[in-house]
Amino acid sequence: MIVALAGGVGGARLALGLAEVLRPDELMIAVNTGDDFVHLGLHICPDLDTVMYTLAGINDPVQGWGIVDETWSFMQALERLGGETWFRLGDRDMATHIERTSRLSAGHSLTATTERLCARLGVAHRIVPMSDDPVRTIVHTTGGALAFQDYFVRLRAEPAVTHIEYRGAEQAKLSPALHAALASPGLEAIVICPSNPYLSIAPILAVPGMRAALEGRRVPVIAVSPIIAGRALKGPAAKIMRELGEEPSSLTVARFYRGLIDALVMDNSDESLSVPVRELNLRPVLAQTVMRDRDSRIALARIVVEQVRRAHRSTRAGVP
Amino acid sequence: MIVALAGGVGGARLALGLAEVLRPDELMIAVNTGDDFVHLGLHICPDLDTVMYTLAGINDPVQGWGIVDETWSFMQALERLGGETWFRLGDRDMATHIERTSRLSAGHSLTATTERLCARLGVAHRIVPMSDDPVRTIVHTTGGALAFQDYFVRLRAEPAVTHIEYRGAEQAKLSPALHAALASPGLEAIVICPSNPYLSIAPILAVPGMRAALEGRRVPVIAVSPIIAGRALKGPAAKIMRELGEEPSSLTVARFYRGLIDALVMDNSDESLSVPVRELNLRPVLAQTVMRDRDSRIALARIVVEQVRRAHRSTRAGVP
Repeated sequence: MIVALAGGVGGARLALGLAEVLRPDELMIAVNTGDDFVHLGLHICPDLDTVMYTLAGINDPVQGWGIVDETWSFMQALERLGGETWFRLGDRDMATHIERTSRLSAGHSLTATTERLCARLGVAHRIVPMSDDPVRTIVHTTGGALAFQDYFVRLRAEPAVTHIEYRGAEQAKLSPALHAALASPGLEAIVICPSNPYLSIAPILAVPGMRAALEGRRVPVIAVSPIIAGRALKGPAAKIMRELGEEPSSLTVARFYRGLIDALVMDNSDESLSVPVRELNLRPVLAQTVMRDRDSRIALARIVVEQVRRAHRSTRAGVP
Repeated sequence: MIVALAGGVGGARLALGLAEVLRPDELMIAVNTGDDFVHLGLHICPDLDTVMYTLAGINDPVQGWGIVDETWSFMQALERLGGETWFRLGDRDMATHIERTSRLSAGHSLTATTERLCARLGVAHRIVPMSDDPVRTIVHTTGGALAFQDYFVRLRAEPAVTHIEYRGAEQAKLSPALHAALASPGLEAIVICPSNPYLSIAPILAVPGMRAALEGRRVPVIAVSPIIAGRALKGPAAKIMRELGEEPSSLTVARFYRGLIDALVMDNSDESLSVPVRELNLRPVLAQTVMRDRDSRIALARIVVEQVRRAHRSTRAGVP
């Protein structure tokens, strides 16, 4: 089994590709929950939903979040009532938040709740939260500390980031399914999807046990860079790198994951970074990493799976 | 000022008529909250909503509850997720429940929350809950005790009623606005709307202070019978009367309110009940009580107001 770490739109796209080339028993997608928040009394898990809706084939491909053919009567009515409307909640999407909140309130874990939602939506592959415990990404900016969605949605990621905190991570436990998968003899590889390293992957790494599992890896670990020719296709990854004093590039991604991964998949356009990446003792893999459609997702997923399986065989055969 | 006690569709219809003939400072509508319940994590107040939507002109006139031109994407999506769908919640209606629940959770009273919702919906007349404290109508049936909405919506009022309990009423306080209105020198009359006596009005009477205010009334109190020629226009009032061993008729309504009211408005078709009603020391008032449209609501409201004002003048003049 391959465990994929994911969060956000880029993560969901590769997760979909992986789900197309791997059987349900061959893949577990572990998703960032640092973006989760309680809003209007609802427990909202944006990254879990994006991955879940994408694998269910009901995601809105244009806006990158939410459900396709969504209606907005609730939001219009809430606006009339003077409610908080900065976080857009579609009518169909509301059902997910209401049902999740109900089940969590009834004492079910986020893992069990996600499993049930996925089953109802016809998602065959396993999607698990990184943790059943609350971890909250706090973005510290030049203007003060901001809850993640305040930073990301309400303020459109405009404030300059000084550092990022994953509050609660130290007390959190990996979700039981993820923990078991990492310890399983059946684990074949770990894939880090092209998600924002700071906002989507770092919260997962901050949960005790995850970083150690990568550092002491006995299976290949491969990451896909979300930066292409110095830019992020979507989201503020490149902007945050600059704000943190780093050059926005796949080399910065390589440094961020150094010691945790064996190989980094970079876009063909970043071929010139192969040498410096190799100097970090990482194997650069060049590929077409822009995933505009289903075919390109599958193609990238195939390359990733092929790379880790080749590495896996080499490791097993004792070949370095 | 006239205080009207209301609940349900019949109550909302007369409340609308009263709002058409009285200025905002001349009317307070005190609404049953015994039907309220927490469902899917939402604090739902069906009677407050029916009155509020009716006065705002956005009620669905066909189904008698909810908002006109409603959409149902949320409910469809919830069904797909395997959520509870026996209580229908429209997309626009959801905004009311979410906003109310948020404000109650933030520590606002139901009175303040209702006031704000009404203001946002452009309702000028004052709508107040009977109490800010929880009162829950429990319907005891031959099949056991049922929470109100389980009885009324899920089981379509089919189980035979043995008695009805207003749980929490003894510990509840009248809402501050209603309490103040009842004690105010400006109080002109109290009107009991043609709502179900057992399910809509009795919960209000069960809150300490309300029954005493009617028993020791110093202003005219008039009720409008919800029973016409032995039948209820809508809802289970007549059915419950039979189950409780009473004949479904305005005379049963008169006995129910005996000692609390001065006059009972009955439908013209119940003229034959005038004599027995008079024998209960109640003044029968015959009128067209079917409120099919706006004009008939206003006409009935005019009769009610005229009756109480005439009684008020008589009382003030010392004439019995």
